[in-house]
Amino acid sequence: MSNKDNKFMPENKKTAALIIIGNEILSGRTVDKNLNFLAVGLTEMGINMEEARVVKDIEGDIIKAVNELRAKCDYVFTSGGIGPTHDDITALSIAKAFGVELYRDPVAKKLLEDHYPPEKLNAARLKMADIPKGATLLNNPVSSAPGFKMENVFVMAGVPSIMQAMFEASKEHLEGGAKMLSRMISAYITEGNIAERLGDVQYKYPDVEIGSYPYIKNERLGTSLVVRSFDKTKLDQAFAEVKSILDKDGVEVEEEA
Amino acid sequence: MSNKDNKFMPENKKTAALIIIGNEILSGRTVDKNLNFLAVGLTEMGINMEEARVVKDIEGDIIKAVNELRAKCDYVFTSGGIGPTHDDITALSIAKAFGVELYRDPVAKKLLEDHYPPEKLNAARLKMADIPKGATLLNNPVSSAPGFKMENVFVMAGVPSIMQAMFEASKEHLEGGAKMLSRMISAYITEGNIAERLGDVQYKYPDVEIGSYPYIKNERLGTSLVVRSFDKTKLDQAFAEVKSILDKDGVEVEEEA
Repeated sequence: MSNKDNKFMPENKKTAALIIIGNEILSGRTVDKNLNFLAVGLTEMGINMEEARVVKDIEGDIIKAVNELRAKCDYVFTSGGIGPTHDDITALSIAKAFGVELYRDPVAKKLLEDHYPPEKLNAARLKMADIPKGATLLNNPVSSAPGFKMENVFVMAGVPSIMQAMFEASKEHLEGGAKMLSRMISAYITEGNIAERLGDVQYKYPDVEIGSYPYIKNERLGTSLVVRSFDKTKLDQAFAEVKSILDKDGVEVEEEA
Repeated sequence: MSNKDNKFMPENKKTAALIIIGNEILSGRTVDKNLNFLAVGLTEMGINMEEARVVKDIEGDIIKAVNELRAKCDYVFTSGGIGPTHDDITALSIAKAFGVELYRDPVAKKLLEDHYPPEKLNAARLKMADIPKGATLLNNPVSSAPGFKMENVFVMAGVPSIMQAMFEASKEHLEGGAKMLSRMISAYITEGNIAERLGDVQYKYPDVEIGSYPYIKNERLGTSLVVRSFDKTKLDQAFAEVKSILDKDGVEVEEEA
């Protein structure tokens, strides 16, 4: 199938991965909000998220994920673990992944000095100015302690509002690629009724990615059909054929976009 | 720190990982709901989720994730990609990961025959009865097409209501381990004010995991401190010391559990 062989990928395709760092996500205490935010933001820029991982606050786990994914993707984003407490070990882990030392960045230190009154700027908070040698700061308008970019790895906070601000600051370093175009149609139909004909359309258009996503809504079964391609002409052709399957069946279309 | 060395892990600790399979999560079209549900459910059973991954509907990516994580954890769960359409390639990928063939399971076929009228049970739907040789079915009371368990890998649907039913069906095969106990206190305090003293408590109790999670609520900064341990006595001692840090600072406690 088209997905497997990546036939539809143009040469200027850009890829990314996300590493969510935090025991609290894996224990279920906290519901992650960063994956979907970043996925939507990157898709808008023409950058394709290839993989996401959630790892524990364990140095070896963070280093392994960072090194695997920075070799595989154009960009890697991390969220979580850059605060002042003992369990914030992301910056040190990134430094070790790159084989460099942490150092106290004077600009980051100044940002903290400007933000905190002197009696509040203790050793723990100053730790937030320690970044790997060779890293570039990412501005944090919410609470001043910056994120940073080390080569193609963007290190962001876990708190969603701060993560979102740091992603904004990352954008000037990101080069968008060919944009995956997308059309969608949802209908009260079950997948099994259209699966064979849908497979035929997929087979006919290897440069188009056709996804089928069942849902349950108002106690009825429905399916969203998402047609994606870097090529607008082929996208429109394939979408028209997908739609004609539904038209022939006379099913009730719920949404089209 | 305690996390890094896993000092607090008892011998009967049980571990798990989740692999979410689906382009729609990585493109941002769909918001995942399965990670948190499974994390909470496993934590309740005394099974610790060690890692989660989101991978694309690509055979090689699925096989790599399954083989890495089934070697690392006691249990692996997957969600997504077991429907009737061309992009549902999870069952075949699992079979390949284990080096076995897919076969049409007669019990699964019977379940589909009982659920669908004969004219609706087409080749695409029958594909949902194909499971890897040696697998055990997981009942699906929602829409009949079963999930399955292959050795320590539990293969579930992506639709949350069906995934949740299949997790229920999985439970009879799961052995809970030592239960991680947890106490939490949230207060309107910023992490940096307590980080050093918190680090001291963590250093004193290596068998306890102390997590610090900042949040923003009602336009105020707060921090949730989560103390976790397999050992109730040490948990209570460490929690008392954490609480005394807040008491000494006279901060407003927002929640305690």
